[in-house]
Amino acid sequence: MEKWIYNFGDGSADGKASMKNLLGGKGANLAEMSNLGLPVPPGFTITTEVCKKYFDNNNTYPDGLVEQVKTSISTIENTVGSKFGDDKNPLLVSVRSGARVSMPGMMDTVLNLGLNDITVEALARKSGDERFAYDSYRRFIQMYSDVVLGVEHYLFEELLEIHKEENGFASDIELGADDWKLLSEVFKNKAEEELGYPFPQDVNEQLWGAINAVFGSWMIDRAMTYRRLNNISNNWGTAVNIQSMVFGNMGDDCATGVAFTRDPSTGNNSYYGEYLINAQGEDVVAGIRTPLNLTKEGRVNAGSNMLSMEESMNGVYRELVDIFQTLETHYRDMQDIEFTVQQNKLWILQTRSGKRTATAALKIAVEMVHEGIITKEEAILRIEPSALDQLLHPTLDPEAHRDVITKGLPASPGAASGIMVFSADEAEKLSKEGVDVILVRIETSPEDIHGMHAARGILTSRGGMTSHAAVVARGMGRPCVSGASGLHIDLDNGTVTVGKRMVKSKELITIDGGTGEVMVGEVATIKPELGKHFSELMGWADDRRTLQVRSNAETPLDVSAAREFGAEGIGLCRTEHMFFDASRIIDVRQMIMSNTEEARKDALSKLLPVQRNDFIKLFTIMRGFPVTVRLLDPPLHEFLPQKEEDYKELAEAMGVDLMFLKRRAEELHEFNPMLGHRGCRLGISFPEIYEMQTRSIIEAALEVSKNLNETIIPEIMVPLVAASKELKILKKLICNIADEIISSSGQKMDYMVGTMIELPRAALQAGEIAGEAEFFSFGTNDLTQTTYGISRDDSGHFLEDYLKAGIFENDPFVTLDQEGVGELIKIGFERGRATRNDLKVGICGEHGGDPASVEFCHNLGLNYVSCSPYRVPIARLAAAQAALKKA
Amino acid sequence: MEKWIYNFGDGSADGKASMKNLLGGKGANLAEMSNLGLPVPPGFTITTEVCKKYFDNNNTYPDGLVEQVKTSISTIENTVGSKFGDDKNPLLVSVRSGARVSMPGMMDTVLNLGLNDITVEALARKSGDERFAYDSYRRFIQMYSDVVLGVEHYLFEELLEIHKEENGFASDIELGADDWKLLSEVFKNKAEEELGYPFPQDVNEQLWGAINAVFGSWMIDRAMTYRRLNNISNNWGTAVNIQSMVFGNMGDDCATGVAFTRDPSTGNNSYYGEYLINAQGEDVVAGIRTPLNLTKEGRVNAGSNMLSMEESMNGVYRELVDIFQTLETHYRDMQDIEFTVQQNKLWILQTRSGKRTATAALKIAVEMVHEGIITKEEAILRIEPSALDQLLHPTLDPEAHRDVITKGLPASPGAASGIMVFSADEAEKLSKEGVDVILVRIETSPEDIHGMHAARGILTSRGGMTSHAAVVARGMGRPCVSGASGLHIDLDNGTVTVGKRMVKSKELITIDGGTGEVMVGEVATIKPELGKHFSELMGWADDRRTLQVRSNAETPLDVSAAREFGAEGIGLCRTEHMFFDASRIIDVRQMIMSNTEEARKDALSKLLPVQRNDFIKLFTIMRGFPVTVRLLDPPLHEFLPQKEEDYKELAEAMGVDLMFLKRRAEELHEFNPMLGHRGCRLGISFPEIYEMQTRSIIEAALEVSKNLNETIIPEIMVPLVAASKELKILKKLICNIADEIISSSGQKMDYMVGTMIELPRAALQAGEIAGEAEFFSFGTNDLTQTTYGISRDDSGHFLEDYLKAGIFENDPFVTLDQEGVGELIKIGFERGRATRNDLKVGICGEHGGDPASVEFCHNLGLNYVSCSPYRVPIARLAAAQAALKKA
Repeated sequence: MEKWIYNFGDGSADGKASMKNLLGGKGANLAEMSNLGLPVPPGFTITTEVCKKYFDNNNTYPDGLVEQVKTSISTIENTVGSKFGDDKNPLLVSVRSGARVSMPGMMDTVLNLGLNDITVEALARKSGDERFAYDSYRRFIQMYSDVVLGVEHYLFEELLEIHKEENGFASDIELGADDWKLLSEVFKNKAEEELGYPFPQDVNEQLWGAINAVFGSWMIDRAMTYRRLNNISNNWGTAVNIQSMVFGNMGDDCATGVAFTRDPSTGNNSYYGEYLINAQGEDVVAGIRTPLNLTKEGRVNAGSNMLSMEESMNGVYRELVDIFQTLETHYRDMQDIEFTVQQNKLWILQTRSGKRTATAALKIAVEMVHEGIITKEEAILRIEPSALDQLLHPTLDPEAHRDVITKGLPASPGAASGIMVFSADEAEKLSKEGVDVILVRIETSPEDIHGMHAARGILTSRGGMTSHAAVVARGMGRPCVSGASGLHIDLDNGTVTVGKRMVKSKELITIDGGTGEVMVGEVATIKPELGKHFSELMGWADDRRTLQVRSNAETPLDVSAAREFGAEGIGLCRTEHMFFDASRIIDVRQMIMSNTEEARKDALSKLLPVQRNDFIKLFTIMRGFPVTVRLLDPPLHEFLPQKEEDYKELAEAMGVDLMFLKRRAEELHEFNPMLGHRGCRLGISFPEIYEMQTRSIIEAALEVSKNLNETIIPEIMVPLVAASKELKILKKLICNIADEIISSSGQKMDYMVGTMIELPRAALQAGEIAGEAEFFSFGTNDLTQTTYGISRDDSGHFLEDYLKAGIFENDPFVTLDQEGVGELIKIGFERGRATRNDLKVGICGEHGGDPASVEFCHNLGLNYVSCSPYRVPIARLAAAQAALKKA
Repeated sequence: MEKWIYNFGDGSADGKASMKNLLGGKGANLAEMSNLGLPVPPGFTITTEVCKKYFDNNNTYPDGLVEQVKTSISTIENTVGSKFGDDKNPLLVSVRSGARVSMPGMMDTVLNLGLNDITVEALARKSGDERFAYDSYRRFIQMYSDVVLGVEHYLFEELLEIHKEENGFASDIELGADDWKLLSEVFKNKAEEELGYPFPQDVNEQLWGAINAVFGSWMIDRAMTYRRLNNISNNWGTAVNIQSMVFGNMGDDCATGVAFTRDPSTGNNSYYGEYLINAQGEDVVAGIRTPLNLTKEGRVNAGSNMLSMEESMNGVYRELVDIFQTLETHYRDMQDIEFTVQQNKLWILQTRSGKRTATAALKIAVEMVHEGIITKEEAILRIEPSALDQLLHPTLDPEAHRDVITKGLPASPGAASGIMVFSADEAEKLSKEGVDVILVRIETSPEDIHGMHAARGILTSRGGMTSHAAVVARGMGRPCVSGASGLHIDLDNGTVTVGKRMVKSKELITIDGGTGEVMVGEVATIKPELGKHFSELMGWADDRRTLQVRSNAETPLDVSAAREFGAEGIGLCRTEHMFFDASRIIDVRQMIMSNTEEARKDALSKLLPVQRNDFIKLFTIMRGFPVTVRLLDPPLHEFLPQKEEDYKELAEAMGVDLMFLKRRAEELHEFNPMLGHRGCRLGISFPEIYEMQTRSIIEAALEVSKNLNETIIPEIMVPLVAASKELKILKKLICNIADEIISSSGQKMDYMVGTMIELPRAALQAGEIAGEAEFFSFGTNDLTQTTYGISRDDSGHFLEDYLKAGIFENDPFVTLDQEGVGELIKIGFERGRATRNDLKVGICGEHGGDPASVEFCHNLGLNYVSCSPYRVPIARLAAAQAALKKA
């Protein structure tokens, strides 16, 4: 017979901490604590395997389970000397879920299970406290009805309120044994009324009802959503823990509490926690009574005059902190512990690694290294790379009031407040006047970039986590909430409506790019501080990683930020971003609109010095580091005027007919611009554009190299190659110009020509393409789009459905799809290296800053990843973790 | 020393017919004829290898060539007893290009080379005909100046005209020796004036000039374009043939002519040709004098009273037809022969397989089988599959006058005349009144389908060979000219402008979908006849092919056409085409616009009987053959109203607010619809749509199967799958409904569920997907789009540039890209079959009707290809050829 159950308690256990996958986190730790000899109420764990079998076999249990449960109940009975359902000395148990990782959203706990009309009387007799017994009974009825039978909690709360009102009671403490007895009856009747059948009196029926409910809750929507957001597999399953009850509510020598072995907010090395005398665990959490401080220091700091546990129950407190020490040393991590004191006897109900802020995580990890508890490698692996995001952006003060009107996608972290404006121009104008603005758009386009720069934050009603707004905002480090589809933007009236609520242009709003919340009014923010623990840990990480980290940046501001965050070069300088500046866009438009090569060249000659100057700044900031410049990529019509007056201005500047311009613009229209006349296709059709760009790059590099006396090796990158012939033609064009400029300068300079691999065909043809390319950069955004046939700007229409249905485990534009897109990257990498064994290979999509994707790149053997400046530290840490995990 | 030159003539040769790749077609055949003992003027061929070396080494020749040319000239001199450049008995030669396949556009011929001021006099003396000698000289100066030195032909023609006018000559015949002598001087002076240096007198300089010109012309634009259009590799190179001159213009016992061994227009087994007495070859071609019939029968049929060669030179004629017999028997194909008679001596200058119409090709091939000349297999291989297109569509009468105003892309073959209308509705309305219309649109959309059906032909000013208009038109067998970008359509004024020419709505126009020409007025057409030769050959082909051929069709008209053309099933029934009918579109729109499942289901319930009825018709026509029905694929917004009044009508029908509809439509907008919310993504988001479609398919199949007592196995196909989970979910949905309907019907029926493989990820994940899919159909249109990252609707912006630059050898939407897209098909096929060894696999993109792509599919081992009805015969023939070639 297979073993479905693991017992614990009484100083020993069948399981141990390392069996988390089988026993869940809670069960494994209960077993571990039992083995450590800590006072754990006896009980047993039904394994996660049972959960899997349950769902695989149409909600039925494996053979033998029922018998094993029976046996384990007997074991508890023997240990504690009471009997389940007994009319004299009844055993009561708690039933709790316990997955591999802690998981809110699932059925959590049923306490006091085993009470019924008969056992409650036995409990009253045994404890000598009828009030306690009936209070426990009504709690059980309420809790069981709610979480197991689906009768909502508030229905019972209402009845309690009515009773209190009728009897003039202000608080629960005023209710006596008779009140609870009466309410137990009232609650049972209410449950029967709602259910259509009586509240179960059979304790085994109660037990199996609770077990079913725990397993059932594994598959409810809330739990699935949580798992999806946190990358937890649906296949892991949950365990069920059944444990003898201990009571913190049997009198003033009883208490219950929650504690952390270090401060989870700050990381300070001092005990932190709360407790309540004469209460059950749920009272601490539910906030019915205000919990008190655990330590004297905590009480003093909080300015409270209510005795701390250290002061009120010093003996038990001493026992407790001994256990804190034991557990932290044993687990080598900060612990989050639940305890109960029953008649001065301390019981430990749970221990687990405590959740903590990013700041605390860094401080704890670094200090534990200094304390000799963990190694530097362990410290590196302890920090969730994406948690660093919190440190890099301002966040809302958690204490401040929030008037949330709607929620969108948390597209770019950080929080910002400002007055609401609807156009990029207005954002820029007001920002120059020193006004903080939030740019609100249905969606953004490259035309809005100056406004996005000027704004404190960006809010859109359309587009996903990787829409234009989201990508650009993350690149700039601007907070952004995208796809807030509840928002109706009425540009004519200058209002935003959510349901019946209307907000007008210029009203103050706040967005939280970390949660997606949109709030009316200003909400106070907290500024981030990186601090010494951050630097120390990142130093360790840098020593251990082999994958280089570059950044996607082009403006001096972003490039400087990238350097500060430790980028070791620019992996992607998007030259088109340099085209949108108000002072140049008219020349760019002239270039596009011209229908002769002559007129195009004229416009380009005006752009040349401007673009050269951009590169001079860029190479100067990045001195000593490689810079990859991508030649013009987006379809030309992205640069076209949107408004009538812009057309008129352009017609005047160009000295051409307005109708001619309009017709030309119409010609440039594309049905699927993502798959249109863009990338190197522009270079083939309009070689003069790439010629100008090459000239400006090379001239800038020569100038900076001369002025700084520094070797500069620009890497010129051709986008959207599908066939090696494209690169062959363009490489020749680039080299002709570059060589001519270099040789006539009299200086010596090397440069490289490479390509993006961002189309499936390019990955397949990588062997041929590497014959021309000196480096590859996988453009994983476009490669994901084409491999899946999904436009990231349109994916919002069905992404949610796909995540819900489990078709996508993650948004493939956020975390690299290793099976599909990853196979193409692997093919491209291997074929490229087979042709040219020193081929430099990196990736420069959004995925460059995603930890799982960084690990994939490390394992494949890429040279670098490149991501937005604000994700550089994340990538550095993820790269170090990847190196450690592989080794 | 490598052999760069192959000699021929005098009853023997170094080469032979099978050396076409090295000697070019002309050279190989000259060698072959020499070996056969036919009277071929002696000469030699410079190989295509020399051409390759010439371009590989910066236009220089390989070592030894100069010497070998010298030696071979000597050989000719010895054979004919004259000497190159000799002042007494000069050798004259012709220099001609000769690639592997005949190739217009390149430098063709220089005749009479070796003439200069001295040799011309020797020629006069030797021939005793001064007029002949100077006529030859001025011809040489003119021809050499034109094709070798780049002095345009018309400059000399002008001088000739002036001379004739000044002297009152009506025709060339009236000019005497002095005239030609004078004109020779005038021509030389003109050449010097244009060139800035004298016309070359050195015969070796003349010879090398001509050789350079032949090789140089391999790389001129016209030749490159021709090769591109005809799939000829730039690497093949051309050979140069240098051959002793013979003269058809030395008197009335001389003649020159061109002949076919069978009639190239009709295929009739009778000699066919033209000749001229006392003329050089160019006179026959140039049309200065009207050539006469070769045979008496030909003369009588033409109603001419000018003696045929059979009558005027019967002796030589008998010799000639003996050679016809020899050559046709030897080459086992109809021959196109050039000959010259010099003083009653017959010389054969060239033989090659004659070009012929599709009708002639069929007749000749079939009759040669009956005559025992070739095998059935050879007959099958003789017919260019795409030539069958000519037979299937009406074509313009080649004799009729054409007022061509512009040219677009030859998007769908056939010709049509009708009055010009600008809207689908108008096209339908007028067509119902019996008026022939041509639908003229900037571009078409699925909304236009009823109008395209109603029209005789379709003309668009935008979009490529595979634009919506082109694809749909080919599917319907409607002639179409797409992307006629010279056309400016002014919808407001109801006019079309090309440059300064304006055509008004309702004016008659004609389009030729085979050439892309757009003409004003009606041009007479010729109706196609398939005939018995077609049926007989196709029967042989069907016996030999293993690849099945299905068709992409859904309307009863198209499905019937597909059957008539021999389709063995429907490979792709696009259910969305059934949605556009005017009587249903409003229900479709209601379905799309509804924002509740309830309202959607209501609309769907109205569509169910309509769609079921479509399938009943389809299954009935296709009884006994498999039918693959693809569930809804295009993005929903394709079905949305375009016009204000349609919105109003819909709002009324749905009983909702107009603003609501508009906002909903706005929500459905997509940036890249090709990569948007379409295909199975619709099925995941709106399962009720696929449920309705499944229901209508299964109910229809059951009904037809009962009524006809025939086994019907519908194949239900899920489009745009990227992950196996999508198919798993949808297959379950489909099977649940199908099984329920079948079991409650009491009938027995099998059905299959499969998927399109049309995304790179699907190809890569084919192993997993085949776990769910019972069949695969490669959607090569979408697969090409995503593999290349090119939207076929937008490719027109740069396709021409790409073909010109040689980046694409062919439009990848017309001929399958075997390297890139082909590798994905191979991966998908192999992984799919590895999972499920009886997996049925086909392709259903446009490529299914492209011969090269059909061969690829055969070689890979696919079960079938599916193409538009009018391409079914092409695919059948191509499949037979593929099978024969592989075996």
